[in-house]
Amino acid sequence: MGVLSIKTSRRVEIIDITGLVERSLEKDSDLAVIYSPHTTTAIVINEAESGLLEDILDFMERLVPYGKGYRHDRIDSNADAHLKASILGNSVVVPVENGKLMLGTWQRILFIEFDGPRSRRVIVKVV
Amino acid sequence: MGVLSIKTSRRVEIIDITGLVERSLEKDSDLAVIYSPHTTTAIVINEAESGLLEDILDFMERLVPYGKGYRHDRIDSNADAHLKASILGNSVVVPVENGKLMLGTWQRILFIEFDGPRSRRVIVKVV
Amino acid sequence: MGVLSIKTSRRVEIIDITGLVERSLEKDSDLAVIYSPHTTTAIVINEAESGLLEDILDFMERLVPYGKGYRHDRIDSNADAHLKASILGNSVVVPVENGKLMLGTWQRILFIEFDGPRSRRVIVKVV
Repeated sequence: MGVLSIKTSRRVEIIDITGLVERSLEKDSDLAVIYSPHTTTAIVINEAESGLLEDILDFMERLVPYGKGYRHDRIDSNADAHLKASILGNSVVVPVENGKLMLGTWQRILFIEFDGPRSRRVIVKVV
Repeated sequence: MGVLSIKTSRRVEIIDITGLVERSLEKDSDLAVIYSPHTTTAIVINEAESGLLEDILDFMERLVPYGKGYRHDRIDSNADAHLKASILGNSVVVPVENGKLMLGTWQRILFIEFDGPRSRRVIVKVV
Repeated sequence: MGVLSIKTSRRVEIIDITGLVERSLEKDSDLAVIYSPHTTTAIVINEAESGLLEDILDFMERLVPYGKGYRHDRIDSNADAHLKASILGNSVVVPVENGKLMLGTWQRILFIEFDGPRSRRVIVKVV
């Protein structure tokens, strides 16, 4: 099992972690699970084109605007981040062959911060 | 493989099933898949703070309101529940080490009922 | 590992691939991962009732309308398809017992095209 350390530098941000994940793979595995142990981040597989990454953040902000009277905001003003994370999911699974992730041509593994900046971890588990 | 039995008591409801999942784990596994075999429920990993759980249900109801002229409602008046379930997903995957789920500090496994009350099952498969 | 070939015939379309997935399973596996290597398609498990399939496509189009000034559209006019795919996810995981998918009564594996028509592949990996 590998654990990636990620430092985010803004409240919301997308980081392409494909290279980090690839370096933590072991040979002879069939499947990689890339898992965020946090409740205000997401992991998504999609294209890492810079305009699209901004589109994703903009869309999620319009879908779940910050600070719109959520109950959880009385405790910790980040309910929007929990909701965004719940919609996108906190893990992805990728088939592995010969020690390589079977990603499609345009696919990258994207770590999405919704409540930064923070130090984050991502678990890479192969089976 | 374990099968959890869950009774829901309202139309929409979130139940923290983390304890039930933990009790059905076997030693020497690497990964747990928590899988709902239903089409109007979801499984999500997030924080189980009571205000946040209400925020999740409220948000999903605003996103996909009940009974808004969906085609499937002619057959079974629960199209909204199918749509909500499709957006959130019917399973989660959690890495396991030494017989323990590698959940982060605030993470809980949440079963979400969107068309209750009903008797539901959740499959816990370890590999 | 199996690779399914799928031809889509419209811009947006849902294809029930359950039968194709079942035919590519091997005995003695515990888990099937059904994985799309594309960035403008999704895989979802839900009911394949024809009205519901139209409801899913309609809902996703209202949620993320085509061509609404996304940055990625300057490069490739399919930002909406990437966003829809990101929300629904590009893979599902299904427990397997005795060579059979443990799908619930109403569950089908649905391949969703958001930027067709195209030739698509789906990877079926069992572990």
